[in-house]
Amino acid sequence: MANPLFSDREIRFVLHEVGEIEALCKLPGLSAHSRDTIDPYIDACRRLAREHLFPSYRPMNAESPLLEKGAVKVHPAMHELYPRMVELGVIAATRPEEVGGQGLPTLAATLAHAYLMAGNLSAYGYVGLTSGAARLIESFGSDAQKRMFMDRMYSGQWTGTMALTEPQAGSSLADVTTSAKPRADGSYQIRGSKVFISGGDQDFTENIVHLTLARIEGAPPGTKGISLFAVPKRRLEGEQLVNNDVSITGVFHKMGWRGLPSVALSFGEEDNCQGWLIGAPHQGLSYMFQMMNEARIMVGANGVSTSMVAYHEAVDYAKTRVQGRKPSAKDPLAPPVPIIEHNDIKRMLLQHRAISEGSLLLVAHAAKLADLSEHETSPEAKAKAKLLLDVITPIAKSYPAERGFFANALAVQVHGGYGYTSEYLPEAWLRDQKLNTLHEGTTGIQSIDLVGRKLAMGGGNGARAFFEELAAIIARAEAAGVDGEDVARLGRATRTAQDAVMQTLTRGLEQGADALLLHSADMLELLSTLFVAARWLDAMTVAHQGKKKGDPDGFYAAKILTGRYFIRAELPRVDTLAAECARTALEILEMPAEAW
Amino acid sequence: MANPLFSDREIRFVLHEVGEIEALCKLPGLSAHSRDTIDPYIDACRRLAREHLFPSYRPMNAESPLLEKGAVKVHPAMHELYPRMVELGVIAATRPEEVGGQGLPTLAATLAHAYLMAGNLSAYGYVGLTSGAARLIESFGSDAQKRMFMDRMYSGQWTGTMALTEPQAGSSLADVTTSAKPRADGSYQIRGSKVFISGGDQDFTENIVHLTLARIEGAPPGTKGISLFAVPKRRLEGEQLVNNDVSITGVFHKMGWRGLPSVALSFGEEDNCQGWLIGAPHQGLSYMFQMMNEARIMVGANGVSTSMVAYHEAVDYAKTRVQGRKPSAKDPLAPPVPIIEHNDIKRMLLQHRAISEGSLLLVAHAAKLADLSEHETSPEAKAKAKLLLDVITPIAKSYPAERGFFANALAVQVHGGYGYTSEYLPEAWLRDQKLNTLHEGTTGIQSIDLVGRKLAMGGGNGARAFFEELAAIIARAEAAGVDGEDVARLGRATRTAQDAVMQTLTRGLEQGADALLLHSADMLELLSTLFVAARWLDAMTVAHQGKKKGDPDGFYAAKILTGRYFIRAELPRVDTLAAECARTALEILEMPAEAW
Repeated sequence: MANPLFSDREIRFVLHEVGEIEALCKLPGLSAHSRDTIDPYIDACRRLAREHLFPSYRPMNAESPLLEKGAVKVHPAMHELYPRMVELGVIAATRPEEVGGQGLPTLAATLAHAYLMAGNLSAYGYVGLTSGAARLIESFGSDAQKRMFMDRMYSGQWTGTMALTEPQAGSSLADVTTSAKPRADGSYQIRGSKVFISGGDQDFTENIVHLTLARIEGAPPGTKGISLFAVPKRRLEGEQLVNNDVSITGVFHKMGWRGLPSVALSFGEEDNCQGWLIGAPHQGLSYMFQMMNEARIMVGANGVSTSMVAYHEAVDYAKTRVQGRKPSAKDPLAPPVPIIEHNDIKRMLLQHRAISEGSLLLVAHAAKLADLSEHETSPEAKAKAKLLLDVITPIAKSYPAERGFFANALAVQVHGGYGYTSEYLPEAWLRDQKLNTLHEGTTGIQSIDLVGRKLAMGGGNGARAFFEELAAIIARAEAAGVDGEDVARLGRATRTAQDAVMQTLTRGLEQGADALLLHSADMLELLSTLFVAARWLDAMTVAHQGKKKGDPDGFYAAKILTGRYFIRAELPRVDTLAAECARTALEILEMPAEAW
Repeated sequence: MANPLFSDREIRFVLHEVGEIEALCKLPGLSAHSRDTIDPYIDACRRLAREHLFPSYRPMNAESPLLEKGAVKVHPAMHELYPRMVELGVIAATRPEEVGGQGLPTLAATLAHAYLMAGNLSAYGYVGLTSGAARLIESFGSDAQKRMFMDRMYSGQWTGTMALTEPQAGSSLADVTTSAKPRADGSYQIRGSKVFISGGDQDFTENIVHLTLARIEGAPPGTKGISLFAVPKRRLEGEQLVNNDVSITGVFHKMGWRGLPSVALSFGEEDNCQGWLIGAPHQGLSYMFQMMNEARIMVGANGVSTSMVAYHEAVDYAKTRVQGRKPSAKDPLAPPVPIIEHNDIKRMLLQHRAISEGSLLLVAHAAKLADLSEHETSPEAKAKAKLLLDVITPIAKSYPAERGFFANALAVQVHGGYGYTSEYLPEAWLRDQKLNTLHEGTTGIQSIDLVGRKLAMGGGNGARAFFEELAAIIARAEAAGVDGEDVARLGRATRTAQDAVMQTLTRGLEQGADALLLHSADMLELLSTLFVAARWLDAMTVAHQGKKKGDPDGFYAAKILTGRYFIRAELPRVDTLAAECARTALEILEMPAEAW
């Protein structure tokens, strides 16, 4: 059977039943939409993903982009796939009509685009990056800049990238050294080097706009002196596109994402690279953070998609691959069974499914919060959604990638020795998934964001919002009559987590930032596991109510079983993680420098 | 700094202090050896690994073997590396002098060869496979077969492989269909297909001997009708080597182990493939199991080596890569620090180290048990060592691979974005490591072996031997005055595990094999974590005693801290796993077939 990428029934459940998209569309900013506009968009994306993106995944994985004479040549398939995605309006799907978009709810667009990601992560990458880059100009650029850059990016004529990382600085953006010198015409002369620029060069559009962090001459040191610039590969001189002194100094050979080049860029080697300041000077990092938060939810969706497509592949393999007999079977001449009948295979599939579907619930919820924080009518409701979104963004970014990597390894394992070969795709998705724990802020960086910034935010408001959401989910499940054992388990884990958070914040207050962050990675994993379990309980509540009205295809029953597996087999990790946070691993601090 | 592959001090500790190799060499069968013969062998292997194998790892990883005109062309480096390994006597290192070996203790050879594996897993693979194949002929072959095959394999003139897996059968060896028809001259005519034959073809020796499972015409069905054959690529006719109708039908493109081809073989397409029956008819599987047990410890050593070399790479990177400041640092102009000063980096390194060093202790212990079960003088001591070795073989095979894969991912993570590129090696080792969870029996197969066969062995004797070993370790640690909290934690975890084992065996007795094995994978992980923690406690006992005599380089102190981290941060996983075994995940059984 062809890989469905996502189950359509699953997406309907998450969008309509759990996500209540129709109710969301009652909000003024989204009222142009309804099931009648949203379902066709999702359907179009799903068809594009199944008919065009996925069939190109294997060839694009096999032949990486090449650097030839200073320019990147991408896989020929992209010349067909990119226009198709542009035609569907993917780039500006969530943007208002005024800027050429469709104004779709982020929730709907995220689920629609998840099909594209699952079909071909690299191909979608060009579009997702262009979206994020154009959005920055939409938010902070001048009208002239919007006409020059944004319009051409939203329409797909030019693509966009994010140029943050520098070789010497890595994640430490405070140490960015790319420089910008004011020119007489109001633009800036840019000089510097950037690395890991995804989609940093390609040959299917005439131009690429790099949204670049640089330091205006004389700017204050550290993060307070960083500005944002649009630096195009080619600049317009009159009607003419001329080279803008942006050179490609290398293409990284990557473990995965083989269809999307990651390049090293050099600006202004001949002192002829112009950039346009976006917004006010020295505000670049705060602007970039807006984009980064969206980009982080997109990475979460990448993670979900990469794990889900592998899940479907593993299920199909397990149903069709015939091998061995049940341990209880004694007759060696009995016919071998499909391996899905072996309990250990079933366990791996169930664990994979519980992680992937849970990750989907998580990312969909983050997307809905993005809609609410933009469109809610009351300022309080808006602020509440924004606060919870801020807290769970590092979770939505890292959980689908970290636990998804484990899940992707299960899909390889289900395939046995064949899973290690490129005859089958799970090994490629396993390689792809690893990047999601690294780009847009490594898991370590996410954990510092969660513990050092988000939880403590506004005197602990962040933590409070997080636990209020859990309490509300538990109350809903109780009221609906969901299995008491499942509800009780989430309640217990929540209390354990609350204690661990309180201890951690107190330690931080008493001993400072280093102590606060000693177990930040464990805390991120703890709260991620807990929050996904909560999203599961919420989905089980919906399924429980749905089941009462009838469950002819058994969808709700399977949903409840899968959620129960998560709550009973995955959630207990919370105890170990909380104990680790509480005990304070002095071994980390006491290991002397010379012992490494 | 050049990657040391293993720390020499570490190997000395494991060999001399924990492993007490000098005492081991007092046993009659090993008395030709002592520190004076063993240390030079290890030193020679270490130098070969550092000076020749490791420098070839990157090029061999970049250029996989090719299939050209029906023959495999391996990387040119192998033409130099293979003779060097042969010259050192690696193939027959542990075999007695009568057959051309050095009679080294398995413990010593395992540690020496670990350097070779860490340097270049694929290059070592050819040698390790030849060793195992020749050993089968040594154990079960006739004198004529030993002269024809074994002598040439131990001397390195020919290589050897294991040809078990068939495309339709996978792990289910009962379904092997390769056939063997008696010929007038006493040999057999072989016909059939095999897949995943590592080292199944190469161009640096004149011949390759495939130790092949096949079914003699009229043999009983299932595992009881499988025989073992030596099937050479070329057979001797007089002085002449002529083709033996073994054809290479494909080379698998693999995720890792890029220097060692995995091929599909076809025997007897022209009805001209001769094989020689090794030992008695229909005994093939039991013969193969002898080899498989050794091969499984070798896979464990592969896992340790792949994880350890990445650990050293990550430490070196973390010491030299300068980036960011401590969270408590306020001055943006303060110079950035080496990333090893960041607590989360240190945590990842410590976890990686605790897993890798613990895995080394585990595999070294298994190797020592192999020595004891061969050379102990009293039958009881021999049987005791054999029983414990049988029980822990699935643990020694799977733990270094499964938890090592996690550790290898940490090394990528420490490298940040660079870790995802092939400029650095951690991504290659991560890819290599995955195979160790698949070949020589997947982790699922190991778990069935542990729970279904080993624990229950002789009315629970297996489980008893396992827990007696734990009790002895705890008693030794207590007597030596090791930190009481560490000892107590291992004691508690042991009792938890004992209960879980008892429950599982009881469930099996009451409900049959399927119920016994429902949580076999969780049980394998549980007992693995526990046993590695026990090996750590044992090493901490030795370190504690060593430290009392002086610790000028801080080696013992670091050893104790690393062990403590394992016991306090890794061992608690036992609780979650035991709870999972105990609760019986009915979701796995209740998920209806149509819900997948």
